[in-house]
Amino acid sequence: MGRTGGWLDRNTVIEMESVIMVMYERPELKAPVLIEGLPGVGNVGKLAAEHLVDQVKAVKFADIYSKHFPPQVLLDDDGVIRLVNNELHYYRGEGERPDIIVMTGDYQGMTPDGQYELSYHAVQVCKDLGVSRIYTLGGYGVGKMVDVPRVLGAVSDIDLCEELGKHGVVFSKGEPGSGIVGASGLMLGLGKMEGIEAVCLMGETSGYFVDPKGAEAVLKVLMSLLHIELDLKALTEKAEQIDLIASKLKEAEVSETPKREDLGYIG
Amino acid sequence: MGRTGGWLDRNTVIEMESVIMVMYERPELKAPVLIEGLPGVGNVGKLAAEHLVDQVKAVKFADIYSKHFPPQVLLDDDGVIRLVNNELHYYRGEGERPDIIVMTGDYQGMTPDGQYELSYHAVQVCKDLGVSRIYTLGGYGVGKMVDVPRVLGAVSDIDLCEELGKHGVVFSKGEPGSGIVGASGLMLGLGKMEGIEAVCLMGETSGYFVDPKGAEAVLKVLMSLLHIELDLKALTEKAEQIDLIASKLKEAEVSETPKREDLGYIG
Amino acid sequence: MGRTGGWLDRNTVIEMESVIMVMYERPELKAPVLIEGLPGVGNVGKLAAEHLVDQVKAVKFADIYSKHFPPQVLLDDDGVIRLVNNELHYYRGEGERPDIIVMTGDYQGMTPDGQYELSYHAVQVCKDLGVSRIYTLGGYGVGKMVDVPRVLGAVSDIDLCEELGKHGVVFSKGEPGSGIVGASGLMLGLGKMEGIEAVCLMGETSGYFVDPKGAEAVLKVLMSLLHIELDLKALTEKAEQIDLIASKLKEAEVSETPKREDLGYIG
Amino acid sequence: MGRTGGWLDRNTVIEMESVIMVMYERPELKAPVLIEGLPGVGNVGKLAAEHLVDQVKAVKFADIYSKHFPPQVLLDDDGVIRLVNNELHYYRGEGERPDIIVMTGDYQGMTPDGQYELSYHAVQVCKDLGVSRIYTLGGYGVGKMVDVPRVLGAVSDIDLCEELGKHGVVFSKGEPGSGIVGASGLMLGLGKMEGIEAVCLMGETSGYFVDPKGAEAVLKVLMSLLHIELDLKALTEKAEQIDLIASKLKEAEVSETPKREDLGYIG
Repeated sequence: MGRTGGWLDRNTVIEMESVIMVMYERPELKAPVLIEGLPGVGNVGKLAAEHLVDQVKAVKFADIYSKHFPPQVLLDDDGVIRLVNNELHYYRGEGERPDIIVMTGDYQGMTPDGQYELSYHAVQVCKDLGVSRIYTLGGYGVGKMVDVPRVLGAVSDIDLCEELGKHGVVFSKGEPGSGIVGASGLMLGLGKMEGIEAVCLMGETSGYFVDPKGAEAVLKVLMSLLHIELDLKALTEKAEQIDLIASKLKEAEVSETPKREDLGYIG
Repeated sequence: MGRTGGWLDRNTVIEMESVIMVMYERPELKAPVLIEGLPGVGNVGKLAAEHLVDQVKAVKFADIYSKHFPPQVLLDDDGVIRLVNNELHYYRGEGERPDIIVMTGDYQGMTPDGQYELSYHAVQVCKDLGVSRIYTLGGYGVGKMVDVPRVLGAVSDIDLCEELGKHGVVFSKGEPGSGIVGASGLMLGLGKMEGIEAVCLMGETSGYFVDPKGAEAVLKVLMSLLHIELDLKALTEKAEQIDLIASKLKEAEVSETPKREDLGYIG
Repeated sequence: MGRTGGWLDRNTVIEMESVIMVMYERPELKAPVLIEGLPGVGNVGKLAAEHLVDQVKAVKFADIYSKHFPPQVLLDDDGVIRLVNNELHYYRGEGERPDIIVMTGDYQGMTPDGQYELSYHAVQVCKDLGVSRIYTLGGYGVGKMVDVPRVLGAVSDIDLCEELGKHGVVFSKGEPGSGIVGASGLMLGLGKMEGIEAVCLMGETSGYFVDPKGAEAVLKVLMSLLHIELDLKALTEKAEQIDLIASKLKEAEVSETPKREDLGYIG
Repeated sequence: MGRTGGWLDRNTVIEMESVIMVMYERPELKAPVLIEGLPGVGNVGKLAAEHLVDQVKAVKFADIYSKHFPPQVLLDDDGVIRLVNNELHYYRGEGERPDIIVMTGDYQGMTPDGQYELSYHAVQVCKDLGVSRIYTLGGYGVGKMVDVPRVLGAVSDIDLCEELGKHGVVFSKGEPGSGIVGASGLMLGLGKMEGIEAVCLMGETSGYFVDPKGAEAVLKVLMSLLHIELDLKALTEKAEQIDLIASKLKEAEVSETPKREDLGYIG
């Protein structure tokens, strides 16, 4: 077969784009802020962003697919699949409250260059939708249980520090010492490159558990910054359960605490 | 040498496409269904698809090559090579029986993004050939021997569940819990994105052996769905041999069964 | 800094091509045969191709660089660097002897898709230069010392078997069982796809040592096929040294021979 | 959702380039020399290049970002982020002293092809800015403490050896035996391919520590070559501290010196 009777069908097929966005609606928003919360340390960012979407009943307007995500579909209870993705939701402001876009999702990019591609795409979308500021949410793993988690900040521009400080954000020299890895870092770096103000809010967390308490702390700062009201009860309850489990584990394994230096930070 | 007397020959050479399809014939088909069966858990999908091709004497009309496959050629008994590939075969319908395209092959993509490229290509081919529905075949590893394998379903659209249920497909909440990984998942997800109905049929299997029994179960569902008659004797005989081997191994190693949680699913 | 006073310099820079060929001369050749010998099992292919280049004083006419090679330069005795590469040499035929191109080099591609890119490039070059047949040279690792190595063959087309058999090439059902991996396989597969006759000659080798004896066996077949005369003394002497070392090692470690199944084949 | 009411937003988004350069100023320079010093063995190259930038108060004129760097931002003491990068600085010459561009940075490319992309980009920038010669700086790991480090050389062209020898550069047959890996090697190889003279200066170092003494040795050669005056006191002091630590460690672990063969070279 091969070379007789066959032809190369090369022109009819295009390669898959690194990132494909399916938009269901193009919301007209006034200088919205974008809030990113994807899986990471203690899942703090994802928990916070998803809680925000639920509470304000934000409307999904786009799905983001990528060959940098795992090659996987997830099933709902009926057996209906969906390709793993990131999602964009919007929520209109009123009065002091700005228009808000929330970016959540199943995964971050699986490789370093996949991370760059996805964050670059997200920043291009921000530009396209007129985003005035990016907030990325993450956890800051400190390697020990935290009673009252601080919310550490990182910013694209020193002018932002004062404003954020007023809302309880802590800027602490040398924390996190290794910088910020993943989408929460890259969207700041690439946003800055494109001229968009960007802030990372990191809720302190042990880094050992999914941590609703860290998410709660981050959301309290966002409530203050964005003039929104959120019922945090569901998070508080989850946090109490985790605390209970953690304290039991601590009794059992009290002698084996890993050192703080061992903990990277992925936002 | 280097810069004197040499020139860069850059324009005469193009890079290899991610996926190259060589078509030997372009079949005119009426809203065909495409059935995908590639290597995976228990090789259920590949066994079923190859048995189908053999039984209905489907005609190969295209080879698919890719740099996402291993860099390898295989040899036949005469020493004639063929590059590892995926293949497309067609089989014309009659009466109730639809036109059918079967996709089989040596390998799935070796990397996550290779998986995406290959499934994306396959879905583009489906669009080009007017495919009306995609069936992907796979195994569902349950980590223990199965006497009468169920065929679990996953669908692109909830409307499909009722029809499939009538043909014996089981929709079971939480199964498979981790979704579907690989071509059998991606072709559903990317098919759905492109507006093509898609169904995954997963034959239960231990996941420890190549499993003709799982393939048989999947083919029985397809026979019912597509109004085709297949002689399954060859699969039944292979299944009996495997059962024999398995029961002997079980006697020998009865104490070391791996836990179900350890088993991923690759379709 | 960042967004004030800076601009993105995006258009002035192009990405590096996967493969860059620097040609120093474009030889006009009559339907040349291309002989490929790159590092692989027992280094049989590379040893044979380099010996051929030396003996016939073939002329280098092109360097091939690639981002799929290691990021490395090598130094000569004077401290002058050269980027790791593959090289093309030509040697004009006369009478029965065809024009010959020899492809040698430091490395094969480091990744599967790099392997594809490089072999695809090489096959495009073959088309461009009017190559009539490709011979790839490799070793066939059998996992034990070999006294009189056979030369196994693999072909793009069954018609070639008879001709090759006359020159001592062995076609043995099931050898090599796992096909041919790497450039020696891909150039056959991709050559076939592009309509170029292609043959792989595999000299038997233990797979444990660099093996001049396997290279010698392969060259004897080539001498017969291409009507060339080569002085093989240098290879014979190296082979005797290796045999000596091997027999000493065998005495020392006689109990630990690896099993044949453990040995893959990279051509 | 999926196929009703959604559309693929494919055309509005471009992929991220492999390498993005943000220029803040385009310096008009006269046939400048480019000096590259990135992280590597003993961090010799990076230490030397950064010391040079500090001492001559070179002006940063460009940031280089890449998806081949880690997906990470770093924080300054105020919490202001910057995306990990490479940087270009210039320093105008006078009299015998040529115009100089210094390339420093946080990381080299994380993958082999990333290494090629970044060095290829850098060489294209050299061409664009009229660079007349490239000096790459690195460490040469010898696996033992070095009292008076030699500076070994590697060149793109044999004509350069004599000139360099006059400034104390040593060309030693077989050193480094495995060639030069990373940016310091590739910029020579790719520079040569593009017709730019290139020299690698390697300061001897144990390879076990960050090594200011190796950096000092390299800078002394550069001072002679480029007719510049540098205060090396800061490096000398750091070197004395490291020597102190090293000698204490040596006392403690005197029996475990790794063999020289174990040390690769990354420039």
